[in-house]
Amino acid sequence: MKKKETEENNGTDNRYMKQALAQAKKALALGEVPIGCVIVFRAGTTEARVIGRGYNRRNTDHSTLSHAEITAIRRASKALGDWRLEDCTLYVTLEPCQMCAGAIVQARVARVVIGAMNPKAGCAGSIYNLFDEPRFNHRVETVYGVMKEECAAVLKQFFTDLRIRRKMNRKPLQEEECEDV
Amino acid sequence: MKKKETEENNGTDNRYMKQALAQAKKALALGEVPIGCVIVFRAGTTEARVIGRGYNRRNTDHSTLSHAEITAIRRASKALGDWRLEDCTLYVTLEPCQMCAGAIVQARVARVVIGAMNPKAGCAGSIYNLFDEPRFNHRVETVYGVMKEECAAVLKQFFTDLRIRRKMNRKPLQEEECEDV
Repeated sequence: MKKKETEENNGTDNRYMKQALAQAKKALALGEVPIGCVIVFRAGTTEARVIGRGYNRRNTDHSTLSHAEITAIRRASKALGDWRLEDCTLYVTLEPCQMCAGAIVQARVARVVIGAMNPKAGCAGSIYNLFDEPRFNHRVETVYGVMKEECAAVLKQFFTDLRIRRKMNRKPLQEEECEDV
Repeated sequence: MKKKETEENNGTDNRYMKQALAQAKKALALGEVPIGCVIVFRAGTTEARVIGRGYNRRNTDHSTLSHAEITAIRRASKALGDWRLEDCTLYVTLEPCQMCAGAIVQARVARVVIGAMNPKAGCAGSIYNLFDEPRFNHRVETVYGVMKEECAAVLKQFFTDLRIRRKMNRKPLQEEECEDV
């Protein structure tokens, strides 16, 4: 029974992570680092529904606030009319940075499901774990590694392509183009 | 000479912190926790100018992204047409939370001037110091305690008034009303 529940949860998590990956591919189409996010609301026995979506548009929008998670949080708060996202699960293809992890804690998101890890800059376990800090007034339940191969593959392909383009132009990768993975 | 320079810097910092305090008072007028922020741009020999202002509107806007610093960063990036705020100093009346400190690092703000500290939740030295983490790709020069009495006083008055109002209504302070200071 326990196993069946887990399988069901994995099935649900995979389904929404696929939607987050679809968002990441929108970033890819813009030439942005492909990171995507969806936020799912479910309170009590109500049916789960996606209330916020986002993908990385930092260079397109000329704004550091255009990370996938920040956009999804903004839209989810607007949908609920509340800054508290307590009955929500956030799905993101890459481990959040310090800003996005902080925003998730501030918004009191109940649960976060992460695809690939970001050992160089992630703040949900890699550099820090802002989701499990007893001195903060909120802790976030975190699930790691859902569809991690697929989430990592889209990033890897992006950077391989970028390196080839840079090499053809004899221009090295910019530091900021490396930091997000 | 050194001393004179320091005095001059202090004079400039005080002048902009006063502007941040004026922003905090806008939050106060809305019944929000009074926190304010301004961002000043100065590149090379150009004259310094304020390119972003913000004050806490979290409850008014129903959004956790309506913290003073996030609003100021959004406006500053729009003014410069760039997500990088490398030639900027950010003035804020209270030590930033994990989200805002993270956004400041992500936006590569060069220098931050802080009024009052936030021992319970601040992430620029209190709980963490996200501004001085060698594993991140950017460090922030930080000045503490500029006009700290004035910055703390406006917050203290807000919470005293709130406690009186709550007591009259026999309603205790909500947890979220305490956490920001």
